[in-house]
Order: sequence, then structure tokens, then C-alpha cells
Amino acid sequence: MTERVVLAYSGGLDTSVCIGWIAEETGAEVIAVAVDVGQGGEDLDVIRKRALSCGAVEAEIADAREEFADEYCLPAIKANALYMDRYPLVSALSRPAIVRHLVAAAKKHGATTVAHGCTGKGNDQVRFETGISSLAPDLKCIAPVRDYAMTRDKAIAFCEEKDLPIATTKKSPYSIDQNVFGRAVETGFLEDIWNAPIEDVYEYTQNPATPREADEVVITFHEGVPVALDGRPVTVLQAIQELNLRAGAQGIGRIDMVEDRLVGIKSREVYEAPGAIALITAHQELENVTVERELARYKRQVEQRWGELVYDGLWFSPLKRALDGFIDEANQFVSGEIRMTLHGGRAVVTGRKSGQSLYDFNLATYDTGDTFDQSLSKGFIEIFGMSSKLAARRQLRA
Amino acid sequence: MTERVVLAYSGGLDTSVCIGWIAEETGAEVIAVAVDVGQGGEDLDVIRKRALSCGAVEAEIADAREEFADEYCLPAIKANALYMDRYPLVSALSRPAIVRHLVAAAKKHGATTVAHGCTGKGNDQVRFETGISSLAPDLKCIAPVRDYAMTRDKAIAFCEEKDLPIATTKKSPYSIDQNVFGRAVETGFLEDIWNAPIEDVYEYTQNPATPREADEVVITFHEGVPVALDGRPVTVLQAIQELNLRAGAQGIGRIDMVEDRLVGIKSREVYEAPGAIALITAHQELENVTVERELARYKRQVEQRWGELVYDGLWFSPLKRALDGFIDEANQFVSGEIRMTLHGGRAVVTGRKSGQSLYDFNLATYDTGDTFDQSLSKGFIEIFGMSSKLAARRQLRA
Amino acid sequence: MTERVVLAYSGGLDTSVCIGWIAEETGAEVIAVAVDVGQGGEDLDVIRKRALSCGAVEAEIADAREEFADEYCLPAIKANALYMDRYPLVSALSRPAIVRHLVAAAKKHGATTVAHGCTGKGNDQVRFETGISSLAPDLKCIAPVRDYAMTRDKAIAFCEEKDLPIATTKKSPYSIDQNVFGRAVETGFLEDIWNAPIEDVYEYTQNPATPREADEVVITFHEGVPVALDGRPVTVLQAIQELNLRAGAQGIGRIDMVEDRLVGIKSREVYEAPGAIALITAHQELENVTVERELARYKRQVEQRWGELVYDGLWFSPLKRALDGFIDEANQFVSGEIRMTLHGGRAVVTGRKSGQSLYDFNLATYDTGDTFDQSLSKGFIEIFGMSSKLAARRQLRA
Amino acid sequence: MTERVVLAYSGGLDTSVCIGWIAEETGAEVIAVAVDVGQGGEDLDVIRKRALSCGAVEAEIADAREEFADEYCLPAIKANALYMDRYPLVSALSRPAIVRHLVAAAKKHGATTVAHGCTGKGNDQVRFETGISSLAPDLKCIAPVRDYAMTRDKAIAFCEEKDLPIATTKKSPYSIDQNVFGRAVETGFLEDIWNAPIEDVYEYTQNPATPREADEVVITFHEGVPVALDGRPVTVLQAIQELNLRAGAQGIGRIDMVEDRLVGIKSREVYEAPGAIALITAHQELENVTVERELARYKRQVEQRWGELVYDGLWFSPLKRALDGFIDEANQFVSGEIRMTLHGGRAVVTGRKSGQSLYDFNLATYDTGDTFDQSLSKGFIEIFGMSSKLAARRQLRA
Repeated sequence: MTERVVLAYSGGLDTSVCIGWIAEETGAEVIAVAVDVGQGGEDLDVIRKRALSCGAVEAEIADAREEFADEYCLPAIKANALYMDRYPLVSALSRPAIVRHLVAAAKKHGATTVAHGCTGKGNDQVRFETGISSLAPDLKCIAPVRDYAMTRDKAIAFCEEKDLPIATTKKSPYSIDQNVFGRAVETGFLEDIWNAPIEDVYEYTQNPATPREADEVVITFHEGVPVALDGRPVTVLQAIQELNLRAGAQGIGRIDMVEDRLVGIKSREVYEAPGAIALITAHQELENVTVERELARYKRQVEQRWGELVYDGLWFSPLKRALDGFIDEANQFVSGEIRMTLHGGRAVVTGRKSGQSLYDFNLATYDTGDTFDQSLSKGFIEIFGMSSKLAARRQLRA
Repeated sequence: MTERVVLAYSGGLDTSVCIGWIAEETGAEVIAVAVDVGQGGEDLDVIRKRALSCGAVEAEIADAREEFADEYCLPAIKANALYMDRYPLVSALSRPAIVRHLVAAAKKHGATTVAHGCTGKGNDQVRFETGISSLAPDLKCIAPVRDYAMTRDKAIAFCEEKDLPIATTKKSPYSIDQNVFGRAVETGFLEDIWNAPIEDVYEYTQNPATPREADEVVITFHEGVPVALDGRPVTVLQAIQELNLRAGAQGIGRIDMVEDRLVGIKSREVYEAPGAIALITAHQELENVTVERELARYKRQVEQRWGELVYDGLWFSPLKRALDGFIDEANQFVSGEIRMTLHGGRAVVTGRKSGQSLYDFNLATYDTGDTFDQSLSKGFIEIFGMSSKLAARRQLRA
Repeated sequence: MTERVVLAYSGGLDTSVCIGWIAEETGAEVIAVAVDVGQGGEDLDVIRKRALSCGAVEAEIADAREEFADEYCLPAIKANALYMDRYPLVSALSRPAIVRHLVAAAKKHGATTVAHGCTGKGNDQVRFETGISSLAPDLKCIAPVRDYAMTRDKAIAFCEEKDLPIATTKKSPYSIDQNVFGRAVETGFLEDIWNAPIEDVYEYTQNPATPREADEVVITFHEGVPVALDGRPVTVLQAIQELNLRAGAQGIGRIDMVEDRLVGIKSREVYEAPGAIALITAHQELENVTVERELARYKRQVEQRWGELVYDGLWFSPLKRALDGFIDEANQFVSGEIRMTLHGGRAVVTGRKSGQSLYDFNLATYDTGDTFDQSLSKGFIEIFGMSSKLAARRQLRA
Repeated sequence: MTERVVLAYSGGLDTSVCIGWIAEETGAEVIAVAVDVGQGGEDLDVIRKRALSCGAVEAEIADAREEFADEYCLPAIKANALYMDRYPLVSALSRPAIVRHLVAAAKKHGATTVAHGCTGKGNDQVRFETGISSLAPDLKCIAPVRDYAMTRDKAIAFCEEKDLPIATTKKSPYSIDQNVFGRAVETGFLEDIWNAPIEDVYEYTQNPATPREADEVVITFHEGVPVALDGRPVTVLQAIQELNLRAGAQGIGRIDMVEDRLVGIKSREVYEAPGAIALITAHQELENVTVERELARYKRQVEQRWGELVYDGLWFSPLKRALDGFIDEANQFVSGEIRMTLHGGRAVVTGRKSGQSLYDFNLATYDTGDTFDQSLSKGFIEIFGMSSKLAARRQLRA
């Protein structure tokens, strides 16, 4: 029987050419799978038909938007996940979501191999391939751009030679990956890290410097999950989508950083993630109100490691699962409301309310009603500082 | 011989009353010491004379501004120190700086005790007392507000009875601590955590929402130390002061959070730290460019623990010293320039330049000149993901 | 109504005197509660009657042995919990188990206060009181030895004056705490940390230096739980008890260390925990076989923090619960058999077998059958070492 | 000019064959370098001559024993480095020591390439190559066994064909790596992890079960460095050598474990490291006496990461250097004496003495002289447990 290859298909030039290219290189039949994680753009049915026109024996589309929001973005919100304290893992979250569908398609169609369009110097190749090998260790992976040296020029030549129904216009200067949780942009002039991004780079966000009216939103969380905006119940997907619009309109969520890639190099990245940044900012402050201090301190370390693992493509790893156990437990009481002002590029928390609050007005107040017994502090301080004091005494002796 | 007590003196009502109060409670002579950490306000010589008028047997002032910037703020910049990812430790940094001067004065004047004006439910009592016991384990500490139940009403009565030269006007609604690194505000209406701060609360920063021209600054660091602004050489103190003005004018550095105090309660805090936030933001991005990935990842954990230790009053502890060893080593190559736009409440990095950069254009670029050997990636991915893949295979077996 | 106090009762002189002493100090009725955590010694019914003779209005005994093994010792085994890499938390584990029964008794009998016999310089006072305030924040705690300065001499005098039915013989030189998980000994001559323990100190273990036949045991674990010894099904309690005898007979589990107490001082402690050490040693090695590398590496950190929390009396804290979530997840595949030789003070693993093993003979072997593709290593090494290499290149440039 | 290759030469069959093999494969001249890290065995001059007979254009030997002890083993002792809590990193420590000499020889002889005899599935290939690329990023690395598929059978055939002066007797069943810090053994029958090692496997240690007289040793440390044994000054090398003999004679330091390799697989390893284990055990206990609690707790985490880095071949990485900064600072007061009994496979600390001790008899004792103020504990406990108590109160409310 002819071998079958499942290809992660975007509808663009590269993966369209891959269909025929893989067939020629391997002799296999190619099944194109396009996964909707909220990237917008072309109609997916148009994309599906293009795959068939390019020679795919089967072409499938999967609407994974709710699933992506619930099973991939939500854990990131609960983890306040910001790689290098900045980047909300936009592409890193979508890869395992896509992988699940590729693997399912491979199983359904009896494919032995999965192919993707990544280059050999980025993170995404790792995320695809470790994801695939974790869900289906016996599937092989190929990356034509990397493994068969498929350059853009060769792709255009192939396209013209085979008369494929794709526009081979001059390449956009921007290399973009986007989904409902955000958007990543790379482009030549940003490879000089002294250059600032220009407005043209952005699509999810307006210029924060443009004067406009502020927006105010109240986000309700239940056990770490955003469940309502301004009192209207929402799904996680809806929460992200609405905040993408509202926070995006205020210029919130632009990130410009030099980043440590898993493959050992540093790269310049520009991101936009208005909804993600608004939700994580709100979630963090609700944790400040509802999570006990020692748990909160430890959770910050867990969050960092969680972010590194996900960035590094280890979504399906045993450690990731065990950290999720910790994070879910820590979110048990993260319920309540956060009021934020969205304005001028900033999502600023202005109020918190929670039935699970650990903030105790009577202990905190310096006014009438104070219930804190200050006489306890003397003993606390003496014993809390004891080991440090003994060490100091030793040092003075020296 | 009469016992002597060194009092941390601010010139305000509480510590002015403390002079006589301590004398009455303990029979000791009181030496007032006011330390200038850039808090501004009244002339320190006026404050010194007031102490004498209130009954101090000696009164001293110490200009600790350069020392505070170099020995306390600078390590915090190198550590990107943000307690709970937000608060640049403003008050927490000043306490050990003040403590050094109190202890020196106690030694000079033969005092056996140090007194401070803190209450019994805050962090500062701990910072003062663990600091003192670490530098001079044999000195005693007293806190009249906490230990002798000196309330504000009693202080005013004492003041009037003794006819002390202090205005006993109705208390300001704001409880404020400030120094060159920032400003902390607490006030009754903010104890309701649903209430937003009002503009009246702020002094170091303008309203970020007011339309104005953006400011652009280039900060030069050498081994983690800010050494020039826009090419002009500066001391650390000057860097903080100038950025307080310039970033403050753009509304940068406002923080409003619910915070975990060392004494086990949560409190609402509002801070302003324009210079600190601008400097830390720039320093972080320069680290992104110059610090190797695994060191950078580990440093984040070290930074968190450093911030907790300093917040918790353990500035002089052995662990703090050992973490400083790590942080100094990690800053060895953090040299270069960061260009930032200061505007609308945000300090945004727009460019980086460094002779110590680990960003390698030729490895990072997708254009001509790419030197990254993509054929290596296949082997990397297979072995990098091996342990996770073996675990996955086991699980599928189950 | 008369106030009621629940007293943690051991049957010894101190807590027997506490019954009357508390009554005199507070006017309350005292309810004595003795909890069996496998400490052995006197019959608990004798102890119960003694409490009544000493003036308790009620006296209860609780057999908490199974519960202690299942809910307190087992999590410690799963966590490989060794405080300071040595001490299996013997007393620290029993305190929360006892606290649960004290709180239940307080509720049942309408008591407002719980009393315990600890001094004011040890860890156990903290464990009792934080435990009680975590389960029943409204209960008060008293510690007569600490709070009413009840010294041993005063206790003997009280005892004789009231003619209490307790032997007031000269105090044993040993201060001992023991339960099924181990035994702790403190005594005057060991307070000189240059002195070695003498054989007289030990009860759970024979002298390891005495020549004897080795014992061999196979311990079967299921998801981290010891479920069989030499193929015979056992409860956790039985596993500990049998290994206490067998490993104890071989001199295994003696620990002699200087330890960091929570109250800030260092103390000399001698422990015996033959069953605990045998079980943890076996569990660790089964984890080596069945737990994926990155999870295993992270778990070591979690284990350390878990041990510190439990040592510090924070058994019922939110962080402890969240760490348990992580640890349980990590134990999911820790199933299989460990063969150990017990001999000469050492529990030495000599074999491992597991249906969940991640050890893959075909990947590991250097003989025929090797399936490891060595050609992948070159790429792995290049990229794995890339960031370090780039940093080195920078340094050579300097 | 002819290319030159520096080969890490052991004198055995594999690396002897490599000389000619590399020459044939690459056309390069081969320079053999043998580094003495205390592995014992053949005279190094004999080895040097054999290299020349096998076709090396140059052959050098380097006595790196003192350097290995001082610069590689000593940091491991200060770090109490035990990978997976067991393995004192024997081979992992020697690789960077050897690499330094290979790189120096390459520079001296104008070589462009370094070759080593490792296979493609172990850790040592990574350690060699990341080490080389960190010291000399422009040197190439080759591993004939891995890169040119040089199997044992082919090596023997080559040897016979070329009439090389090496015995090609049947391969020893044991694959061994040894140096002064310990010895590693792999062998076919141990690849079945249910099999126990046999006595034949061991060379550095006697059978611990054989009855014999105990040995007692007093080890003196100065700032973490072992400086005397039983009062006689020693170098670090001498300390390791003498304790190898004395602890080895008592059967101390045998390790049998399943280990996580960097290349993602688990392997069975048997080690002997009598001196290393004795020294680390003593050093740990001296730290218990002299290092402040919070520093000690944090150091355990640092130690774990240090061990992982060194195991993973990142000796020359920036993170390793920064961790060394921490560890050196932490060892500043680790001075004093540890008395140990060496017997029956166990190195047991029986006494500690230190002028830098933080153990304070007067605070620790329960006898006359107690200076600990127990009245402070009440306040400490209340505030220490406050955040946990507030969380508990919330939960009861729920």
C-alpha cells in the first residue's frame, strides 16, 4: 500500500508546494490538514479546496478554536505564563493543539508520517516533533524546508512548473504566526536589534499613543477561569476574542524583545497579545488577593518552569502534567472580580472583589476596627531573625 | 551612667514625640538621627534643630543619598528586583541603609538601644530590627508605637502638654514613605480594595493619560551599572534622579497592588517609582541580549528569592550575600545601550546595542548570510525529546 | 458554662501534672486525649485511667496508627522526604495526625482551648499550634511548660502536693519522642556535638557493627504505595512495622546530625527510623527507573520544599496541598519491585523490576540489539551546547 | 600544510586504532595526548611510546592529578555534588580537566580538530565536545567510534592488518572509567537491572560485609577545603587518595543505580568512590554546623543544579560559573573538624568542632545555662502561621 503523509497545511505558498514536493520526494500520498486556532485570514473551505487542487489525496479542516482556548490558552492564564517575563507563549500554545489534530488525522487515514512547514532553526519544529512523538511515538516526522532544503525560490519554481493555483507574488516582508491568543511578527529590518518596530508591523493593536477614550472592563474569574466580562457570561474563547478587540483598540499587549530560542540562539521577536495580556494581568492580581503567601511565592517558580517547558515544546511531557496538578490546585480559590482600565497601551487593575479574598480589612486597617495584635510582633521578629543574628554574631567575632 | 537610645528621627509628629516619650519610659538620653535617602521634604538642618528642641541630647543628620543609590538601589537594579513581580522594594531598600547609620551612631555615642517609629503590623519594624541585630547583635530595639502603645491621639496630647514645637494639625489622610528610589502611599479609602486610587495620591508621577510629547532616552550600562544617560556620564544617584523626573513626567512607574506582608497579612499598597521602573526595564532587556539562556533562566529564580529576602528584612543575611555573589557574576557582561521611549505611563525599549551581545545576526537571520546549520536540528530534536517520548510510549502501552 | 480545655496527653509526668495545673491556672475543665501513633510503651487504657485519676473530666484514647501510616507517613514516602537530606520527619509527621484528634475532641466536647506539653524552644509547639489554628482558627492554644513556666521541679512538687498517681522518679537522661515511623532522642551529653552517641541511646535498631546474617527483602510498590513485602500483601502500617523489625535488626536507619530548627537555633538530634529509611531508599530507586528525567529533577526540588514545610509545621498549609498534587501525579507510574539487602546498617538496592519501567534495555545496551541511533548525537550536542559556545566565543573576544 | 588532529589517548585498543583510522579517514596527522587524572594502570611513558608506534606524529602526557583534585574535585566537594542524590560525578568531573589539556595541545601543535574515543550514546561525548567548543569554539570535534562507525571488530581487524603493538585479546566484559575521584563500571550482565553486582566488579573498595576493625578519621576543613587528616596537613589530592584507601578498605562508596543520561535514556551504573563519599559526607555535616539555615536551604537547590550542569557537560558554562560564585561564598565559614568512623560500608560522623560554629550550646541546651527566651515563641508562632491560618479560615467558611 502507498505510504501516506499528513501535512500541517496553512494554505500558503510553502505548504501548498510541500504537497507535491513530499509526493515527489517520498512517493507518498499527502493528506492536508488545516487547523483553525483563530488565526483568521482566508476561509478554511477555500483552503481545503486549494489543497486538493495542489494534489492532496484528502484535505481536512478542523475548527479547534474552543478547544484551543479551553485546553491550551486557559492553562497559560492559570499559570500567568510569560516566557522571559514577557511573552505569553502564543505560538508555543498553538503547536500542541495543532499536533493533536495531525495525529488524529494520521490515525484515521493510516498515515505513517507527519510533515510540517517549519525551518530548522526555530522553536516550532521542536514543538511539532516532540508533540507528535509524545502522542504517537511511532509516527515519523518530516520538515521539507529543513530536510529537503526546500527554499522559497525553489518553491516558486516548483509552483510555476506545476502550475499550482497559488499566487507567487513577491514575498511579504513579514513572517507572521497568529492565532486567537496573539500574533508574532518577524521581519528583516527588525533583525537589527537597534531598530524600533514601525506601526505597519501591528494588526491586533492600535497605536497606544493615539489619544482616545479609556475603556473599563470587569472580568469575573471562577477558580482561575474567566467566566464573565462586565457581568455577561463568556466562554474562554469569547473572553479572549472580546478582550483582543477592546484591549487591542487601546494598544495593549505589544511586546518587543530579544528572546532565547530553544535551539541556542537569541532572536528578535515582536508580538501582539492584547487579550492574553489583559487576562493574565487581571488573573495575577486576583491571585494576589486570594492565594496564600507561601503558595504564591512557590507558584512563581512553577510558573516560570511551566513557561519554559511549553516554550521548549514539552507540552505533553510528564513534568508539564505534574506542574498542571500544582497549578490547578493553586487556582482553587481564584474566584472574584477584577476591574481594569484599558487605556494608552496599559491594562491597569483598579479594583478587586472576591468571596475568597484573604485580604482582611480588619487586620489591614490602621483605622478603628484593627484586630491585629501588635504585641505578637516582638517575639516574631526575634525568632524570625534569630539564625541571621547568630550568623552576624559569628562574623563580628571573626 | 545614663543609658542612651539612638532614635531614627524623621522630624514628624510621631518621632518628635518619641524623644520625650522614650526618655520618660526608660529614663534614657535620646540621640536623634535623621538619614537622608533622598526623601526630600524639609531641610535636614531644620529637622536636626527640631530634635534638639524636643529634648534630644544629640541630633545628627547623615547624607546617605549616594550610598543608598550605590549600595542598595544598584544591587536591586542588577537583580531586576520586583517583589511579587511588581514592587521595586522602595522602602525595603532604605531600611538597611538607615540601619547602618543608626548602628554607627549608637557605637559613636555609646548607646545600648535603637528606637524606631514603626507600628507592630508592618514590614518595617522587622527590617529595622533584624538589620540592627545583624549589624550589632547586642543592641536592643524599641518601637514606642508598638511597645508603649503610643497612639496618635496620645502623641498629640503629649505634644501639647510639653509644648513641643511641632504642628499637630489634623493628620494627613496619607501615610507616606518616600526616598529617591520611589514612594509608597497608604490611606484609608484605599483599604477598600475595590476603590481606585485618585490623582491626589501621586507626587512623583504625572497622570499618564494626559496627552503629551514622548521622551526618548538612551541608557548606557557597564557590567549592570547605569553609567550614562543620552551619552552623558551619570552616577547611579543621578541616573535615578533624572529618570524620576523624565519618566515621572510621563506617568511611568505607578503600581497599585495587594501585597503579602511578612507579618502574614495582605495589604493594599500604592507606589510610584518612575526611575526604578525605567532602569529595571532597560536592564532586563540588556540582559536578554547579553546573558546566556541557562544563566538567565536560573537568574530569574535567584531574583525572586533576592526580592523576597530584601522585602522580608534579611538584607544582611548570609543567603542575601551569597545571592549577591551570583548576581554580580551574572552582570559581568551586561554592558551596552538601551534606547527607550518614555510615554503614556510606559517605558518601552526600542533598541539595544552591546559589544557583549550574544545576539548573532548571522545565526538569527532568515536572509542571506545565515550561518545556522539546520541539518543539526533533526538529531537535536530526537534526543532532546527522547525522555518525554519514552514516557509517552509507556503511557500508550498502559 | 465552665470553659473546657483539651489536653494532648501522653501519660507521663509533665502532661499528668498539666491536668491539674491548667485547671488551677484557668479554672477550666480538662479533657485528656491520648493518640496512638505507634509510640508503643504503656497500655493506652492504663493511660486513660491515669488521666481521670489526675483530675481530667473526660479522657479519651484514639488508635490513629493506620491513619498515621496512610495519611502522614505515606505522603512522606512518596516525597522521599528527608529534611536536610537526612531526617525522615518522624515527629513532624505525627503532630498533625495528633492535632486532628485534638481538634475533633475539642469540637465534640465544646472546648475552646487546646493544650500541649511542648517547651517554647522546639519545633513541636509550632507544629501543634499552626496545625490547630489551620483546622480550627478559633481555638486557643496553651502550652503550660512555656506559658505558665511549668518546670520539671515545679511539676514534681505539684505532683507530690496533690498526691497524683505518677512515679516522680529521677528524670530519665533521655528526652524521647517516638512513633511507628521512628524515634528521636535528645540527651545532655549529646548537646556536646563532639560526643558520639552510645549504644544505650538506641531502641529501634541493633548495633550495625555486630556481625550477623544479611536479610533480603523485595518491596512491591503500586503508584508509590508499598503494597507487598516478599510478595505478601501489606498495609502501609504493616510495611513500616515489619521493616522496622527487619531493618532495625540490621542496624539500619540511625541518624546523628546537627539540625536547623524552625525557631532559628541549631540542635543536635539522634534518630532511628529503620522502616522509613528502607522504604524511602527503595522508593527513590523505583522512581529512578520509572520517572522521566525532567520530572525527576524537578521533583527533587519539590521534595525539599515539602520536607521543609512539614518540618516547619505547615502540614495543613495551601502550599503543602499544592505540592501534594504534584507529588501524587509524579507517583502515578511508580509501580514495581525493589529487591534490597538489609545488612550492616545499610539498605542496599540490588534489583528493580517494573511494568512501568522507562529503562529500555535495547536503547541502553552496548551489545547486540542496540536500537539507539548514534548519528543523532552530533546534531544534539551542537545545538545543546550552542548558547554556552556563543557565550564562550564572546569571552574569548574580550 | 597537513591538518593536525589532537586525540584524547588512553593507550587502549580503541584509541590506539583511532590514530591510524583518523589518519586514513581525514588525511590528517594525529597527535596523541594522554592525561593523568589519577586513573592508575599502565605507566604513562609506555603509553606515550605506544602512541608513537601506532603512528602518532607527536605524543604527550600530562600529569593533571593535582589540578584535577584542586580545580575539579574540590568544587564538587564544596557543592556536595551528588547527581540524583547518589553519584559524585566521577567521570563528569574528569572530562573538562582532560579537555583543557587537549585544547592546549591543539593550540601548541596548530591542530584544527580534537578527537575522542566516546560512543554516540553516552554522556562523555557531550562533555568532551561542549567543553572543547566552550574553550575553543573554532576547533572541530570528531568521534571515530560514532562518526566513522568504528566498531570493536573493525578495530581488531585494523589492528591486525596494520600489525599495531597492542594486545587484541578478547574484550574484558567490563567497560571502565576511573580516576582519583572514583571508578565507573558498566558490563553486560548489569544491563539486566534485576541482577545485583558481583564482588568481581569492584576494585577501589573491599566487601563491606567482611568483618574487620573500624577506622576513625578526623578531617579538617578550611573554608570548605579539606586541609588535614588526623591533624596531618594534606593537599586535596592527598586527602582523596588517603581516604580512597582507608574508606575503600571499609567498603565505603559503592553505588548501584539507574541513572538518567543526558541523551534521554536511562542506564544502569555501578560506581565506587570511597574518598569522594567520605569527604562529601564530612563536608555536609560541617555545613550543618556552620551554615545559616536559609543559606543552607537554598544551597541544596544550587547544589542540585550544579550537579546537573556538570553531569550534562556544561562545566564551562556561564551558569556554572555563577553558581560557583554562590557556592564559594557559602563555604566561607565552613571551617572545622569532623570525626568519622569508617566501617562496614558506612562513613558515619561522630563528632564536629568548629570555631565558626553556629551551634550555640546555651541556646540549645535544656539544662542549666539555657539562654533562649521561650516567651518570644508565642508571638512568633502566631505571626509565622498567620497566612496559613487565614487561608484555613477561608476554607472553613466555604
